Amino acid sequence: MSDRRTGETAQRGDMWSADEFEAAIRAVGAERYHDKHPFHKLLHGGKLNKGQVQAWALNRYCYQAAVPRKDAALMARCHDRELRREWMHRILDHDGSGPEEPGGIERWLVLTDGLGLDRDYVISRKGALAATKFAVEAYVNFVREQPLTIAVASSLTELFAPKIHRERISGMLENYDFIDDKVMAYFRRRLDQAPRDADFALAYIKEHARTREEQEACVDAVRFKCDVLWVQLDALHHAYFEPGNIPPGAFRPES
Amino acid sequence: MSDRRTGETAQRGDMWSADEFEAAIRAVGAERYHDKHPFHKLLHGGKLNKGQVQAWALNRYCYQAAVPRKDAALMARCHDRELRREWMHRILDHDGSGPEEPGGIERWLVLTDGLGLDRDYVISRKGALAATKFAVEAYVNFVREQPLTIAVASSLTELFAPKIHRERISGMLENYDFIDDKVMAYFRRRLDQAPRDADFALAYIKEHARTREEQEACVDAVRFKCDVLWVQLDALHHAYFEPGNIPPGAFRPES
Repeated sequence: MSDRRTGETAQRGDMWSADEFEAAIRAVGAERYHDKHPFHKLLHGGKLNKGQVQAWALNRYCYQAAVPRKDAALMARCHDRELRREWMHRILDHDGSGPEEPGGIERWLVLTDGLGLDRDYVISRKGALAATKFAVEAYVNFVREQPLTIAVASSLTELFAPKIHRERISGMLENYDFIDDKVMAYFRRRLDQAPRDADFALAYIKEHARTREEQEACVDAVRFKCDVLWVQLDALHHAYFEPGNIPPGAFRPES
Repeated sequence: MSDRRTGETAQRGDMWSADEFEAAIRAVGAERYHDKHPFHKLLHGGKLNKGQVQAWALNRYCYQAAVPRKDAALMARCHDRELRREWMHRILDHDGSGPEEPGGIERWLVLTDGLGLDRDYVISRKGALAATKFAVEAYVNFVREQPLTIAVASSLTELFAPKIHRERISGMLENYDFIDDKVMAYFRRRLDQAPRDADFALAYIKEHARTREEQEACVDAVRFKCDVLWVQLDALHHAYFEPGNIPPGAFRPES
């Protein structure tokens, strides 16, 4: 870690080592990543009906669709060309470049197609829960407004993603006759993409968080991002698992 | 309504009359204002315990505290001095001006004091649900980003507020021994303030929405605002009425 600034000796002395910093970030995942959420367990455990899985996929589409806007918001305020060059591939991963590489959003729509949802309805986000949209836009705004290092840190839930993706692939394939290997393509692809992105972001914040306060703000950013994910499952759990709770205007399954 | 622009004849022909426009806005309230929410009925019907009422007051504080920021965001993009002069009193209504006129946020803190919550903890918003904070910030961002007339329209849930305030005052005083007249001061004051503000905003959008599309966007703004309120009660209902659902980091009642 280079020391380009002056007068930080005292603060630097309180800093976590790189390993302690990483451990603090990983502890957030152990405490509140959404693989701990009861709705995730219901989903991959085969305890939901098709309408409930539709509701999940339809709402989660809002999140997928927001990711490239979030990444563009980060690039829009970034004066470091190297960081922009590195970050750009995230937008391509999600938006794709055409028929040869359709991208993650298209792969998500293959899932919603496979679940029998109308594609235009999914894309319109009209049936999504307001709580989903608020949480997703909170993430976009966080990345737009927070200091760059902290914005980068908010992507680090990707450290915890491969486990949940593997659980989803095996659990959903095993437990639902309306899920086949083709519609699980999104998750398979993320098994490679997420660790690469997480490794870069983790190295970046280790280098650029230069005070204990910044390190703690990075940990808080991961906590915030876990909240963004948790709120989405809370909203699904409330609206679609307990009867009588679907808010006005939200998707109503046929089954 | 003056017609300063040209080329709008066709669009103007499709416009709602002022009465039709108002009726469309009022219909949104009839369909999805949060007085229809089961948690509101539990609250004013005396069906909650003290911890659940604490959770409601603590979360609702986030909304109260955001209102002056929302109003300042509106004023910040407003070139019309007359509108700013009119809008300014909303900030004063909430922030107050000192001990003589403490304002709505202070009156809300009298309520949370009365419920036995630590004032610094309430103000820190640390125990508030993430869903609450996301919904409230969505409202601030909406007012910051949408066209001015539509931003004004989003305040119009105040048309529906006096009824819910009266229900809260009578229901909560009658049903909870830990609620007394003093802590209900916030709602009493809003009985006068909300109708005055709503009348102004309604007259403003009737004058300034100059196409059917703008009128419909105003109606959508009221729908959006109802979502902001509904999401907050959904989150409370899920976290504090059903056992086992309090998210990581959120307020945990003692009772």
